[in-house]
Parts: sequence; C-alpha cells; structure tokens
Amino acid sequence: MMEYPLLLRGILERSRKLFPKKEIVSRDYTGIWRYNYGDFYKRVCRLANVLQEMGIHKGDRVATLAWNNHRHLELYFGVTCYGALLHTLNLRLFTEQLEYVINHAEDKVIFVDQDLLPLLEGIKDKLPTVQAYIVMTDSDELPATGLNPVYSYEKLLAAAPDAFDFPEDLDEYTPAAMCYTTATTGDPKGVIYTHRGLYLHSMCIGLADSLALSETDSLLPIVPMFHVNAWGLPYACTWFGSKQVLPGARPDPATICKLIEEEKVTLAAGVPTIWMAVLAAYRQQKFDFSSVRGFVCGGSAAPKALIKAFDEEIGVPILHAYGMTETTPVVLVSKPKSYMLDWPADQLYDAKAKQGLLVPGLEMKVVDEEGREAAWDGKQIGELWLRGPWIAKEYYKDPERSKPAFAGGWLHTSDIVSVDKEGFVSIVDRAKDLIKSGGEWISSVDLENTIMAHPAVQEAAVVAMPHEKWVERPVACVVIREDWKGRLSEADIISFLEDKVAKWWLPDKVIFVDEIPKTSVGKFNKKALRQRLEQA
Amino acid sequence: MMEYPLLLRGILERSRKLFPKKEIVSRDYTGIWRYNYGDFYKRVCRLANVLQEMGIHKGDRVATLAWNNHRHLELYFGVTCYGALLHTLNLRLFTEQLEYVINHAEDKVIFVDQDLLPLLEGIKDKLPTVQAYIVMTDSDELPATGLNPVYSYEKLLAAAPDAFDFPEDLDEYTPAAMCYTTATTGDPKGVIYTHRGLYLHSMCIGLADSLALSETDSLLPIVPMFHVNAWGLPYACTWFGSKQVLPGARPDPATICKLIEEEKVTLAAGVPTIWMAVLAAYRQQKFDFSSVRGFVCGGSAAPKALIKAFDEEIGVPILHAYGMTETTPVVLVSKPKSYMLDWPADQLYDAKAKQGLLVPGLEMKVVDEEGREAAWDGKQIGELWLRGPWIAKEYYKDPERSKPAFAGGWLHTSDIVSVDKEGFVSIVDRAKDLIKSGGEWISSVDLENTIMAHPAVQEAAVVAMPHEKWVERPVACVVIREDWKGRLSEADIISFLEDKVAKWWLPDKVIFVDEIPKTSVGKFNKKALRQRLEQA
Repeated sequence: MMEYPLLLRGILERSRKLFPKKEIVSRDYTGIWRYNYGDFYKRVCRLANVLQEMGIHKGDRVATLAWNNHRHLELYFGVTCYGALLHTLNLRLFTEQLEYVINHAEDKVIFVDQDLLPLLEGIKDKLPTVQAYIVMTDSDELPATGLNPVYSYEKLLAAAPDAFDFPEDLDEYTPAAMCYTTATTGDPKGVIYTHRGLYLHSMCIGLADSLALSETDSLLPIVPMFHVNAWGLPYACTWFGSKQVLPGARPDPATICKLIEEEKVTLAAGVPTIWMAVLAAYRQQKFDFSSVRGFVCGGSAAPKALIKAFDEEIGVPILHAYGMTETTPVVLVSKPKSYMLDWPADQLYDAKAKQGLLVPGLEMKVVDEEGREAAWDGKQIGELWLRGPWIAKEYYKDPERSKPAFAGGWLHTSDIVSVDKEGFVSIVDRAKDLIKSGGEWISSVDLENTIMAHPAVQEAAVVAMPHEKWVERPVACVVIREDWKGRLSEADIISFLEDKVAKWWLPDKVIFVDEIPKTSVGKFNKKALRQRLEQA
Repeated sequence: MMEYPLLLRGILERSRKLFPKKEIVSRDYTGIWRYNYGDFYKRVCRLANVLQEMGIHKGDRVATLAWNNHRHLELYFGVTCYGALLHTLNLRLFTEQLEYVINHAEDKVIFVDQDLLPLLEGIKDKLPTVQAYIVMTDSDELPATGLNPVYSYEKLLAAAPDAFDFPEDLDEYTPAAMCYTTATTGDPKGVIYTHRGLYLHSMCIGLADSLALSETDSLLPIVPMFHVNAWGLPYACTWFGSKQVLPGARPDPATICKLIEEEKVTLAAGVPTIWMAVLAAYRQQKFDFSSVRGFVCGGSAAPKALIKAFDEEIGVPILHAYGMTETTPVVLVSKPKSYMLDWPADQLYDAKAKQGLLVPGLEMKVVDEEGREAAWDGKQIGELWLRGPWIAKEYYKDPERSKPAFAGGWLHTSDIVSVDKEGFVSIVDRAKDLIKSGGEWISSVDLENTIMAHPAVQEAAVVAMPHEKWVERPVACVVIREDWKGRLSEADIISFLEDKVAKWWLPDKVIFVDEIPKTSVGKFNKKALRQRLEQA
C-alpha cells in the first residue's frame, strides 16, 4: 500500500470537490452568515496566503481566541493545512492562565474575536513571543485597542489570492493543533494533536456505531471550538460534507433552541449543563425539534434523569459520550448493542447513563490500586488507562508531569470507572473526588445523579468533607428549580435518597445553593466548591 | 499523540472483549455451524499456536484455498495477527495460474477446503516452496489425497493452546495479506495489503456515508473471501461486532435467499451476476427479505434496470460500489447526497446506477489521453487515477508492470470514467473494452446496461469487432430469460435501443447465446467472448 500521509489537507480538499454547495451557517455579530464549502475553501486559501505573507513557518504556533464561528472554522483548516500549529485559547481561563499558556506555547500571532480583545489588552505587555494580533469582526472598522500591531482579518483576506498549494508531503505526525487542559491545580497542561490523530479521530466519529456523522447531518456544536477541537466535529463535518451550524458568541439556551429549529439541526453536542439549560428553555417554550436525531452529551456524566427527560418530554435521544483533552477527545460512546434493545426500559436507561463502549481504534485497561486489572462485573473499580492513535503521548514541554500520567505507554486518566459485563464503562468519579468513608468508596457522581433525578432539583454536586471518625463524609450542594423554591427541605432530599442508595452513602448534609461553581468548560468545579464550604 | 500502530490485532481484540456473545454463522459441509466471537477468538489463538509450531515466521506466506466459511475467517485473523502474510488463492484460476501464483508468492503452507484438494493434487509436484498442506473438513477423517505432508486443521487446533500473545509492536506497514489480480492477459499480478491499509479500509466502510457497517448488521458476504479480502467485510464486521453469515461452498441463488431469510441478513454483498440470479430466484419464490437494508453490488457496473427491479419488486435498495484488487477494494459508493433525494425518481436511479462518490480517505484524478484533467461535466472521459492509504503502490516482485500502472505515485486504473457535477463517477468502460467507431467512443458498458433494461434480457455483453471502414463496431451477445425464449428477435433488441442510444451506437449484430463467459470472479470475460466470436 502507498505510504500516503493522513493529513487534514485531504479532509479540506474533499469538502471542496464533493460538497461545494453544502452550507456553513455562522451566528455572527450582525446576524446569520451563510456560505458554502466552495466559498469556504477560497477563504481558507486566502488565509493560508496571509499566514505566508506574515512569515509564519511550519510548526509556528498560531493562536485563536474565538467563539464557534466561520472564521474560527477557517483557522481550523487554514493554519493546520498550511503546516502551522493551531493553538485554541480557552476564553474562560483566568488572566494569569491565559498569559501562561500563550507564553508556554510561544504563540507567534493571535487571531481574536472583536469582543474578546479586552482579555488580551490586560496582558499584552507580558507576551514577548506574540508578533501580531488579527481582529475578527464583521465591521469595516476595527474597535479601538491598545494591541499592537493589529490587523483586520477581513482586510487581510480580501487582499490575498484565493488559491493556495497546501503541502502534500507533511509527515502525518506533524502537530496540527494544541489545547491546554483546564487543570484545577497547577498550571494548565498542553496537549498536541497531530494530523494523524485528528484524521483518525474524525473517521472514528463518522462510524455508524459512534456518532455516525454524515452528509445528511446539520450539526450544531455547542461545545466550544476553543476546547479539544470542539470534540473533533468541525474536522469530521467538513470531511463528510455535513451542514455546520456555528452558534457564535455567548449563545443562550433560547438562541440554541431557535438555531436548532430554524437550521433543521439533526445533531448537537454539548456538556450536561447545556442540556439542562436547553431542557429548561424547552419547558418554557415548545420549539420544533423534529429534525433532531440526537443530542451528544459529554464532558461530564449525563444524569439518567436528564436522559429520560429528553426522551419522554422532547422525544430526542441523548447520546452519551466520554473523552478528555488528552484524547482528542472521543473515547466512549453509549450506544446500546442490538440485543440490549430488548431490555426493560429502565435497564436500558441505566446503560445509556453509562459512558458506554470503547470506540474502534482505542485500547483500554482498568487498573486498581494494587495494579491489577479490574474484572468486568460492574462492581470492581479502577483507574481507566487508554492508548491509541488519538491519545496524547505527553504534556507539551512538561516531562515532570508527563511521567506519571503516561507511564508505561498508557494515558492514566485519573478517572475511576467500573465496567459491566457488556463492556459498558461507567465513570464512578475523578480519582480526587471519590469519597472514602470508613474504608469504603462513595461515588460523588452517582450520588449527584441520584439527587438530580428529583423533579425539584436543577443541579447537585457532592463533595467530601473531612470527618473525624469516617475520614471523609459526603456533603451535597443542591440548586432547586425556580418553581420549587421554598418547598423543599434537607429531609426531603434525604428521604428521596433512602431507598435508592446504601444507608452509609446518605449525605451528612444537604446545602441549598444558588449555583454550582463551574470550570471554564462548564464542568462542576469541586475544588472551588470545597473551598466555599470550608470557608462557610 | 502516541505512535500507536494500526494493526489488525486491535480489531480482533475488540471483538473478543466487546462482542463475545455475537454470532458467526457458517454454512459448513454438514450443515450450519454457529459460534460466537468469544469462541472464535480462542480458535484464532489455537491457529496462531499451530503456525508457531509449524515454524512459520513473520512475513512467511500462508496460503488459503477456501470458500467463505468460519475456518477461512479464523485464517484471516490468525495468520495476519501472528505477523505472517495471508495469501488467498482464487479457486477459480486455471491450474497453470494457480501454480504460478503459489510459486510467485513462495507460499510455505496451504490451508485447503476438503473439496478443493483436487485443484492442488494435479500441481503438487510443481510447488517447491510448499512445506505442508492443512485440510479443512468437518469430518474426523481426512479424504484420501496424494498431497504430502498433510494435516487436519481441526486436529491441529484441538491440540494447541487457546491463548496467544499477538505481537503489539509490528510496524503498521507490515504486509498482512495478498491477492493476485485475475489478469486477462499475462500472468496474474500480486497485490500486498498492509495492516495499515486494511485497518483504514475497515474504518472507511464503517462510515455512515459509505457502507455504514455496524454492530446491528447481519452481514452476508457472497463476494468470495479468496478475492480482495471479500471487499474487506470480514475485517470490518469483526471490528464492529456485526453478525457474520458465511455462505460456504458453491452457494446457489436459492441457498443465498434462504440464508438471507433465516439469518435475518441486513446487508449482503456480491457482483451483479449474483444479484441477477437472486432476482430470478426471488421471482420464482417470494422469500422474506424484510430484514434487509441493502445489497451491495460491485465488481462490475450494476445496470439501472437491476437497481430498479430490486427497488420495485423486492423493496431492497442496491448500494452500488466500485473497487478493484489494487484498492483493497472500496473506492466509490453511490449514496445520493441529501439534496438529491428531491430529484425525480428516474434521475435518482441514474445517479444510483453510477459508481458514486469517492469515499473519505482517497484522492482521485481523471486524466484524458493528452494528460489533462477531465472536467466534471458528466461528458468528458478519462482514465481514473487513485491514491491513498489503501491503494497498492506496486505489483509484487514485478517492477516492469508496476512502472506504468503506478507512475507518478498514482494508480492508473485502466478504467475510463466520466464525473458529473455532483462528483459522481461513472465507469464508461475498461480502457481495452471501449469501442472506437469512426473516431468516436462507444461505451460497451452503457450499451450492455441499456440492453439489460429489456424485460426479456437476462444478461448482455457488448464487444468490439474489427470493421474495415469504422475501425471497430459493437456486437451484442444476449442471454434471453427462460420464459421469453423463442419470442425475441435481433430486430426487437435494435428497435428497443433506437430511442435510447445514438444511432451510430446501435450494434451491428445481436447474437443470442446461452451464457456469457465469466472470469474467475464473476465478471464478463470479454476476452473469451471476443475469441468465441472470432472463431464463429
């Protein structure tokens, strides 16, 4: 067989040749921007010419600070197919972290959405490697800014030729993109994605048995393009010629619902907190979701109650998936096997609420504290280890933290899981969030999901608090739904749990709060929660 | 990303771990054999131990002369995952060709189905590299044979351990399998399939937009496992945990129909002649095909009339695909784009009768006689050139014939095609079968398919005959359906064609024949047909 490199260039070229008429829709600052893969290709070529003109070399880091929009999509391909490295900056990082990642990656230029300029202005004097800022706006004029030198994306593109010879001879292990994890302790850790990894990951999520992405789809990625390649969806959609619907800056739940209805979205992807908000919005106003074949839910565990609510109230299946920054990210997808469809409804929901089956292409191992492999009995727990062609091999320029995380050629995920007889993986907890009470483990995730099955509960997070006798005991923080406020007591929650969990799992305390603190990618921030509780 | 090699081992291991209960059904000599991926894995391990015991080394050629059955499937994985090279011998080759390919490949052992022993007995003294024959039979006793030394597959397996450590560190470019083309002129040409190529090809045919192979499928490969990896289906099905239904020795159309009905087949794959025979059988007896989601048709062009007949009479879509020995084989799949579904029925049938869209992962070019790229206008024709990770880079040990066929890093397919505005490729003809009449091209394939749309016609093949004035002129050889015999004249065929093709395309002669000669893989053998006509 030919030694033909697996490059993103092949993805881009296929969309131009086979799907020039298929649409890309982007919620811009001034409205809805529409174009097609034919025009998209020309702008990607213009962008590559701009990079060349600016003196960007192969391997140089080109950063983006941007929402999910068509310009960001152009950068996804223009930068990577050119041979440079796309560094997507997480716009929800603290200023110090943003400064850290830009300097650690040694970004050479930053492409920034107009409304995100202030994030950079405060740190501009501390970014010695950055040689230029390119502002992305619909307006003819750039907003006033202290950044320097600063250029207009649209003006640069307009002046550049609309053809470009993308290199065909890159090594497939060439880095294409990078992203930093939102570490809750210490500095963020950088992960490099190669052309090969992104290519294979894209193929994987087009498989009938994973996300089955297809030309027939109209895809809405709510999951941000600034984090883990928006779960790889922009690459895969472009390859298969799917319609892409990019929701732009700060999409609120109503905007999301409207986009789904108006653009006849078939598949959308987001974290559980997004789907909780969409459910709340839908309960207020019945949008037309008849085009939808599924909502992909990942980033943290989707509660069974959420999955059931979408099924029963909206008639849309939640497709549960699991991944992390280090894994490009898709690792597990919870699609029941054919013979499981005969199971009783509740048992099937239990399966769907698990993170699911390992996708084709990866290998996993579940390793307990003594280094033994856990049995697949749904009970034994251990840390999930992964290896495969789209799993990171190290943290960027960080040998010290890479060593334990990638020991022995496996990624040690720090996720504690069990695997049932069917091979369905269930995330029990993050290693550091597991609660050890009297020598036994309590899963904070299981407790949370059980509490969230209560109709009055909007969100719940469970953390360990130190305990003299039992070492640790669980404490639940609960957000009550607006219409239930004042009608629910701590005792109600406890009595709701009594026939659902073991007695010693019952939280020592239930605290009603207005919100659960979240990380920059929308997950429960348990570190912040523990700090708040300690202070209180 | 990890430098994790793409190996068939990963496919095998996934089936064992995730789908141990899923079924493999094989039509054996004594009935239907059933087992599951759990038991399959153990037998594959036993087989690997047998290979080791026999002194097979990495890279050694291990040949099979076998039908589509479970033992052949075990060899597909046991040999390749062990690190040796699976050489599938085409049991329909002429004796001299069989001798040639065994010696050219330097096969070390041959695994042979009991009823195929006679094929080897006649040439056994001319196979210096072959050190052993392993006979595959359900019976306890081996049939009497002059082959020596000879072993029983089942006895060897029974004596071997059922665990094996398949190597994890093979280079992904390691050859895994090989197959010889059934060249109509000269000796057969060998094609090597690497682990990487088979792995990526398997992923490709699992894509929602290609064959969408899935765990939910019950797959019947009628296309032989001795030729081009049975279109890669055995590898892909094992990866995704599909049920496999292997039809065994010499399956006739009624057997195929019965297997589809009884094993609730969802997808089956074969050449057009198979589907013509299945259609004829179905017309005699209405089998229950309600489980079927599609019949994949490749190897030669599927006539539009056949596609329509399956749709209208059976309610099963024909999924048209294209490939060749040198391409693993899937290259094109004719799945209409979403917006084409609004087209008028007849226009949509025209699209489905084309070979279709290039699958993700490959690149193509259509090059005319002057070396220019043909426009995608559905009219200009040229030779189809291909490149990609599952396209051969050369013919095995044959630099002389490799040079023109792989010039410039592209496979020159010798297939003359046109491409329409949607990117759908249409095979006009094999380069050598095109008819050049008065300086203009006539497509023998188009003429055949138009003739086959006549309700009385079972099969039709068109070849060029020399002509003094026009250089070449078309002659049609037609097989009439049983119930129409004696009721159709040459003039009927010509008048049927008159409003369907250009006047100068009308055949100079229509000859009624009892059968069209076929190649060893079921395609029209036009070389043999031309010879017959010349003799007549």
